[in-house]
Amino acid sequence: MGRDTVVARKIETVLTTLIELQRLKRLDRTGWTLRGMANGTESVAAHSFGVCVTAMMLADQITARGLAVDGERVLRMALLHDWAETRVGDMPRTATHYFGGDARKKAETQAFADIIHDAGAGKGQYEALYRDYEQRGSLEARLVKAADVIDLLIQAYSLERAGAKGLDEFWEVANDPDFNLPAIAHEVVLEVLKSLLEARSKL
Amino acid sequence: MGRDTVVARKIETVLTTLIELQRLKRLDRTGWTLRGMANGTESVAAHSFGVCVTAMMLADQITARGLAVDGERVLRMALLHDWAETRVGDMPRTATHYFGGDARKKAETQAFADIIHDAGAGKGQYEALYRDYEQRGSLEARLVKAADVIDLLIQAYSLERAGAKGLDEFWEVANDPDFNLPAIAHEVVLEVLKSLLEARSKL
Amino acid sequence: MGRDTVVARKIETVLTTLIELQRLKRLDRTGWTLRGMANGTESVAAHSFGVCVTAMMLADQITARGLAVDGERVLRMALLHDWAETRVGDMPRTATHYFGGDARKKAETQAFADIIHDAGAGKGQYEALYRDYEQRGSLEARLVKAADVIDLLIQAYSLERAGAKGLDEFWEVANDPDFNLPAIAHEVVLEVLKSLLEARSKL
Amino acid sequence: MGRDTVVARKIETVLTTLIELQRLKRLDRTGWTLRGMANGTESVAAHSFGVCVTAMMLADQITARGLAVDGERVLRMALLHDWAETRVGDMPRTATHYFGGDARKKAETQAFADIIHDAGAGKGQYEALYRDYEQRGSLEARLVKAADVIDLLIQAYSLERAGAKGLDEFWEVANDPDFNLPAIAHEVVLEVLKSLLEARSKL
Amino acid sequence: MGRDTVVARKIETVLTTLIELQRLKRLDRTGWTLRGMANGTESVAAHSFGVCVTAMMLADQITARGLAVDGERVLRMALLHDWAETRVGDMPRTATHYFGGDARKKAETQAFADIIHDAGAGKGQYEALYRDYEQRGSLEARLVKAADVIDLLIQAYSLERAGAKGLDEFWEVANDPDFNLPAIAHEVVLEVLKSLLEARSKL
Amino acid sequence: MGRDTVVARKIETVLTTLIELQRLKRLDRTGWTLRGMANGTESVAAHSFGVCVTAMMLADQITARGLAVDGERVLRMALLHDWAETRVGDMPRTATHYFGGDARKKAETQAFADIIHDAGAGKGQYEALYRDYEQRGSLEARLVKAADVIDLLIQAYSLERAGAKGLDEFWEVANDPDFNLPAIAHEVVLEVLKSLLEARSKL
Repeated sequence: MGRDTVVARKIETVLTTLIELQRLKRLDRTGWTLRGMANGTESVAAHSFGVCVTAMMLADQITARGLAVDGERVLRMALLHDWAETRVGDMPRTATHYFGGDARKKAETQAFADIIHDAGAGKGQYEALYRDYEQRGSLEARLVKAADVIDLLIQAYSLERAGAKGLDEFWEVANDPDFNLPAIAHEVVLEVLKSLLEARSKL
Repeated sequence: MGRDTVVARKIETVLTTLIELQRLKRLDRTGWTLRGMANGTESVAAHSFGVCVTAMMLADQITARGLAVDGERVLRMALLHDWAETRVGDMPRTATHYFGGDARKKAETQAFADIIHDAGAGKGQYEALYRDYEQRGSLEARLVKAADVIDLLIQAYSLERAGAKGLDEFWEVANDPDFNLPAIAHEVVLEVLKSLLEARSKL
Repeated sequence: MGRDTVVARKIETVLTTLIELQRLKRLDRTGWTLRGMANGTESVAAHSFGVCVTAMMLADQITARGLAVDGERVLRMALLHDWAETRVGDMPRTATHYFGGDARKKAETQAFADIIHDAGAGKGQYEALYRDYEQRGSLEARLVKAADVIDLLIQAYSLERAGAKGLDEFWEVANDPDFNLPAIAHEVVLEVLKSLLEARSKL
Repeated sequence: MGRDTVVARKIETVLTTLIELQRLKRLDRTGWTLRGMANGTESVAAHSFGVCVTAMMLADQITARGLAVDGERVLRMALLHDWAETRVGDMPRTATHYFGGDARKKAETQAFADIIHDAGAGKGQYEALYRDYEQRGSLEARLVKAADVIDLLIQAYSLERAGAKGLDEFWEVANDPDFNLPAIAHEVVLEVLKSLLEARSKL
Repeated sequence: MGRDTVVARKIETVLTTLIELQRLKRLDRTGWTLRGMANGTESVAAHSFGVCVTAMMLADQITARGLAVDGERVLRMALLHDWAETRVGDMPRTATHYFGGDARKKAETQAFADIIHDAGAGKGQYEALYRDYEQRGSLEARLVKAADVIDLLIQAYSLERAGAKGLDEFWEVANDPDFNLPAIAHEVVLEVLKSLLEARSKL
Repeated sequence: MGRDTVVARKIETVLTTLIELQRLKRLDRTGWTLRGMANGTESVAAHSFGVCVTAMMLADQITARGLAVDGERVLRMALLHDWAETRVGDMPRTATHYFGGDARKKAETQAFADIIHDAGAGKGQYEALYRDYEQRGSLEARLVKAADVIDLLIQAYSLERAGAKGLDEFWEVANDPDFNLPAIAHEVVLEVLKSLLEARSKL
C-alpha cells in the first residue's frame, strides 16, 4: 500500500470522526427536558460551545490577573469534554448515582477512546487531554469543569428569565462551589458566580 | 399517627410516583435523534404506549391459536418496562456496550425500585414484574420483549415511509429474531415481522 | 384459499392496525397548543400511557382497600380509549359543544370500529370495552375516566411547575369531581385529587 | 352608559377576537403530523397566509385575462376561511367522513359565528363571507377553495422536495380537479396545477 | 413562440413565486427565539396572517366611524409586507442599528422586487403597494404598520399569559405610539392598545 | 472607586457578554429552515462547535505534515467567528447579495465590537482575531473559513443520509473550493472534501 493510500485512508477516518460528532448537534441535554422544558432547549453541541466560550473568557481574566493558564489546552479540553455522549448519551445526573461515578467515568473514557480511534494526528493529544479532564489533574482541567458548571447556570438563568421555573436544584451547586482552584482562579470564578446569583435575585 | 394520616401520606406518595413518570412524556428516544431525525420524533412514553398496544394484540392472536397467555401480566409489564428511564435516561444501544449489559440491568433495576418505593399497594407486584421482564423468565416477559422490538421496527417503518433514511441497522434484528418463545407465540411474532419486512420492501 | 393464506392475511391486517396507531405518537394534544404551550408538549400516545399508569395505580390502591376491580379490563380500556383520534383528531373541548356530545361519541365509536376492523382475535373484546368506556357502564370504565382526568391535571401541574400559566380552566374539573364511583374508589380518587391540589398550592 | 364606554367595550371585544385568533399561529395542520412529518411543519395561520397569497395571485391573473374578480372579497374570504379551527381544531379529512360533511359545516359555522360575535363593525360582513365560502356561492368563494387546494399541494411539493414521502393521497385531488369555475378562472387554475405536477415529476 | 407557450411560462413563474413564499411558513420570527422562547413560536407567515387579521378589523372599525379606508389595499399590503424575508431573513431589531435603516429598506426593496419579478399580472401593483408601505405614504400604509405592531404585542401578551417573561422591551413601543394617523384611525388604534395594556396588567 | 468595585464591575460585564452569547444556542441556522428542514435542525452555537472541532482536527493533520499552524488562534477564531449573529441574526446567503458583502462585514464587525465591549481582559485579542478572520489575513483565518465550509457540508451530508433532499446548492462550493491555503493545508482540506464527496456518492 503506497503512501497516498495511507494518507487518503487516514483523512477518511478523520472525516468519520467528524461525522459522528455531528450527532451532538441535535442530542438534547436531558436535564432540561426532564424538568419540563421544550425539546430543543439546548443540544450537547450548543452546551459545549458555551463551555468553550466561558472557559476562554475565564482563562483570559485569570491570565490578566497574573496567573499563567494554557489557553490552548483549556479550549481543546472544553471542546472535547462531552464527545463521549455520542455513544453513551446525555445521562441525567441521577444516572451517575445508579451506575456509580467510577463506572460512568470508565465507560465514557472507553467511548471517547473509540470515537477518536482513527482521528489521525491529534489522537494522542486528545486522549491525554480527556484523561486530564476526567482526573481534574491540572489547573486547566479544573477551570474547564468550573466553566461547565457556569455555562449550566447561565443557561438556567436564561430559561428563568424567559419564564421557566422548577430549576432550583441546579442552583444548589452555585451555593457550594468547591472547585479546587488556585487562589486567583478561584477568585475569578467566584466573582462570576456571585454576579450570576445577583442577576438571578433580580428576576 | 392515625389511620387517616397514613392513608393520606400513602396516596401522596402514589402521586409523587405519577408525577415523576410524567417525565417520560417528553424524554426523546435518542435512537432517532442520533440518526438525524427531528427532536420530538418519539417520546419514551409514546414508545411504551406502542409496546402495550403491540403486546396486547400479539397476546390476543396467540391466545386465539390456543396458547394460554396472561393478558394482565403482559400489559402491566409492557407499561412499566421503561420506567427506569426517568432516572437513567434513554441510553443509546452503544451505551450498553460501554457499561456492560449487567451493570445496565443492575442500575435500571435499582432505579426502578427507587421510583416505585412509595407507589403503595401495587409496589410488590411491580417489582416482581420488572424482575421477570429483565430475566425474560416467563412467556409474558419474552412476549413483551418481542413487542418492544416490533414497536421499534414499526416506528422505523413509519419514519421510512415518511422519507427517513439511514435506519438500516435497526432492521438487522428483524432478520435474526431469536425470541425464545413457544412455537405458537414464535409463529405469530414471525408472521408479524415477515409482514413488516414485506411492507418495507414495497416502500 | 388455504388456512395458511388466511392466517397470513389476518396477521397482515393486525400489522395495518398497529401501523395506524403509530400516528398517535406524534399527534399533539391540542389543549396545550391552543393555550400557548410549545408544539410537542404531549402526544396522544404519551397521554394514553399516562392514563394507563394512573389507572393501574388507582386500581391497585382500590383493590388493596377491599373493592374488587378487574385490572386487565382497566388496562385494556385505558390503552384503547383514545384510538379513535387517529381518524377524528384530538378535538378541543369546545368542539364537543359545537358538534354535540352524542354526535362526537357516535363518530368516534364508528372510527374506532373501522380502526380495529381487521385487528384479528381481540376485535370483539376491544369493541365491547370501548362501548363500556363510552357508556361509563362499569366500575372499570368510570375509573379509567377518572384516570383520564387525573393524568390531564398531573400534566397541567407539571407544566405549571415548569413555569406555564393560563391553565386555570383545566383545574375547575378538579374542584367539582363527580365521578360516580363506589365509595372506596371515590375515596381514593378524591385523595389523589386533594394531594394534587395541595401540591399545586405550593408552587 | 355613555358613548365612550360603549366604544371602549366594543374595542375590547375586537381585541378578544384578535387574541383568540392568535391560537391559529401554533395549531399544527394535522394532515402532515399524521403522516409522520415533524411537529411545527405548518400552522393553520401559516396555511391561511398561503391561501391568501395564492388566492390573490390567481385573482390577479384571472382579472388580467378579462374576467372580473372582486379582489377584496377574495382576500377577506381566504383570510377567515379557517377561523373556526380555534374552536373545533384542525380536523383530519377522515373526521369529515365520520361526522358527515353537513354536521361539520354546521358546527364550524356556529363556531365561526361565536368567534366573531363581538368583532364589532365588520361582523355582519364576515358572516356573509363565511356563508358564501361554505356554500361556494360565488366565483370568489370557489376561487378561494381552489387556492386552499393549491396551497396544500405546494406545501406537499415543498415537503417532497425536502425529502418527504408518503404524501401521494394529497395529490389525487390534483388529478381530478372539479372546481366549478368559469372558463377563464378554470384555465388559470388548471395551468397552475399542471405546472405543479410537472415540477413534482422532476423531483 | 405562440401565445400558449407564453401563458404557460407565465403561470409557471407565478408558481415559482408561490413556492418561494412557502418558505415563510417555517421561518421563525427571531425576536422570540433570541429571548428564549422555543423554536416554532411564530413563523413569519403566521405573523403575516396576524397582521392581515388585525389590519382588516382595524380598517373595519375605522370605516364604521366614518373615515374612508381602502380595505383591499390594506389587506394586500399587510399580506406582502414581509415577503422580502424569504431572501434577507427575519433580521432582529438590533440588525437595523448595524446596517442602518436606509440600507435595510433598500436591500428589502430590491429583494422584494426580485421575488415578484415573474409574478405575472399583479406585479406592478405589488411593487407600488410595497413602496407605499415602506414610505408610509398613505393612511393604509400607516394603518398596516400599526397592525404590525399590534400583532406583535398580542403575540407577546399571549406568550406572557402562557408564562413567558423577559418581553418588556417589546411593550415600550406601546407606551409611545407615534403612528401618524388621522384622528379617527389614531383613536381606534389607541383604544386597542389601551385595552391590551389593561389586559396585560391583569395577568 | 476602590479596586474591588472595579474588578466586580468588570466581571459583571464579562457575565453580561456570556449571557448574550447564550442566545446562539437556540438561534436556528436559517439555511436549513428555508429549505424545508424542521426547526431546531442546527443552532448557530451547535454549528460553531462543529467548526471548532473541524478546525482543530484539520490543524492537527496539517501540523503533522510539517506546516506550522497556531492551534490556539485557530480555536479562538473558530469559536468567535459567528458571535455577531446574536445581534444581526443568521442571515441567509441571499441577504449578502442584497446588502452587499462589504456592508455585511461592516455591520457584523461593529456588532461584534459592541458585544465584546465589556468582555474584560480578552477584548483586544478577540477584536484582532475577528478582524483577521474577516480579512482572511492569516493561514489560521483561512483554515477556519475552510472548516466553516466543511462543517456546513458535513451537516448537509448528515441530513441527506437521514433522508433530506434539495440541498444540492450547498455542494456546489465543494466542487469549486478556492481556499487560498498553502500547499500542505490545501492538500489536507481537499482530501477531506474528496472523502466527503465520495461518502455522499454512496448514499
